[in-house]
Amino acid sequence: MAIRGLVFDAYGTLYDVQSVRAVAVELCGEKGELVTQLWRLKQLEYTSLRGLMQHYEDFWSVTRASLEFALESVGLTPSPSLCEPLMQRYLHLDLYPEAREALNSLKDRKLVILSNGSPKMLQALTEASGIAHLLADVISVDLAKTYKPNAAVYALVEPSIGMAKHEILFVSSNSFDAIGAKHFGFNVAWIERGGGEAAPADSNVSPFEFFRLLRGRAETLGSTADFLLPPLLSEPNARRAGGMVV
Amino acid sequence: MAIRGLVFDAYGTLYDVQSVRAVAVELCGEKGELVTQLWRLKQLEYTSLRGLMQHYEDFWSVTRASLEFALESVGLTPSPSLCEPLMQRYLHLDLYPEAREALNSLKDRKLVILSNGSPKMLQALTEASGIAHLLADVISVDLAKTYKPNAAVYALVEPSIGMAKHEILFVSSNSFDAIGAKHFGFNVAWIERGGGEAAPADSNVSPFEFFRLLRGRAETLGSTADFLLPPLLSEPNARRAGGMVV
Repeated sequence: MAIRGLVFDAYGTLYDVQSVRAVAVELCGEKGELVTQLWRLKQLEYTSLRGLMQHYEDFWSVTRASLEFALESVGLTPSPSLCEPLMQRYLHLDLYPEAREALNSLKDRKLVILSNGSPKMLQALTEASGIAHLLADVISVDLAKTYKPNAAVYALVEPSIGMAKHEILFVSSNSFDAIGAKHFGFNVAWIERGGGEAAPADSNVSPFEFFRLLRGRAETLGSTADFLLPPLLSEPNARRAGGMVV
Repeated sequence: MAIRGLVFDAYGTLYDVQSVRAVAVELCGEKGELVTQLWRLKQLEYTSLRGLMQHYEDFWSVTRASLEFALESVGLTPSPSLCEPLMQRYLHLDLYPEAREALNSLKDRKLVILSNGSPKMLQALTEASGIAHLLADVISVDLAKTYKPNAAVYALVEPSIGMAKHEILFVSSNSFDAIGAKHFGFNVAWIERGGGEAAPADSNVSPFEFFRLLRGRAETLGSTADFLLPPLLSEPNARRAGGMVV
């Protein structure tokens, strides 16, 4: 198998969705951590629900609605003075530390993003983080008017990248995404971000720990990734994970 | 509007999914509370993901897979000695205290369940709880091979109940379900179970509180229920909520 193209998920894979936390804590005080976790979980839930209901609205709308839900849940009013700075932060999420170097080291392959994000959100993100020039394409699910892991989303890749499935490696830290991509037929690498740590001693966990327990492990949904990559494509680990030709 | 038929959700609406907690605590000790909440959240997530992937397996399978995920997340091995008693408890969930009386008081209307549960799970539940004789039909999403809130699920109701949408009131405590039913076109009552309580002071919340914050409030997904019913259809409250003819 020779991999000629790599398709990356954006939120959670290249970009750290937890990087909204500092703004959330600044604006929401001691509830900021809770808002951060509720927001992300509700955002993901809304993409699934809208996909399943066939009632699409774009990720900007979903991200805003889920933020409002999270704020109201903890007893805060979703005023513009709370929502605007948090939404703006979502357009400037931090790249994971190793992501830029990893993309740079792979630039002899065709590199593409496939993301739930709206076109405008993805344009803002890739430009603000200075990786736009490394990418051959940035594909938004908006073209399919549904969300991952609907197969219609993964079907956007081949026409864009101009390669067949077997030449493509799909890379995501979101295990539902890894499973969706695998079910569709790609070679898949799942980046395990934080799921492999020690289990809690009892039920007293922080919101972030709860989030991690809920989302940090591989799903048991009948498909498994081909490769497991602890940190993102840093070469020694990638080789160790499966001797893959990337 | 004259309501001639009522359609009830099962899990979380008539039956308390939290009633697995005592067995979970007995088997998992101090991690039991955490297992209870992770299990339910992951179970719901798996229904959405399988629906969106169009890769259906029934609710028994999903419930088992999500239990295994939850146990492994907290560092426990999903052995039969842990899984079997918990799965068995899922076949004998507690009815909410007011549910039997509410159904009894409504028995001059046609009463139906529409649930994500598999036919066998729903048969076991309704028989064990002694409400089977009150129900004209128990409809499983299994007929549509997908999950709520996919419209194909709600479309199962009219042929079964033999009435038109406007004669039917759909009742659920799961707000994604209430929204799906509303989006489909039913009259909808959303039963608010525990979402209206005081907001937390900070981010230190128990797993159950986190669950409640994530799931206890009405979703902001563009549709709203017609009626809000704090406790299940107990008549004074039902009248107060909207003067509805039930």
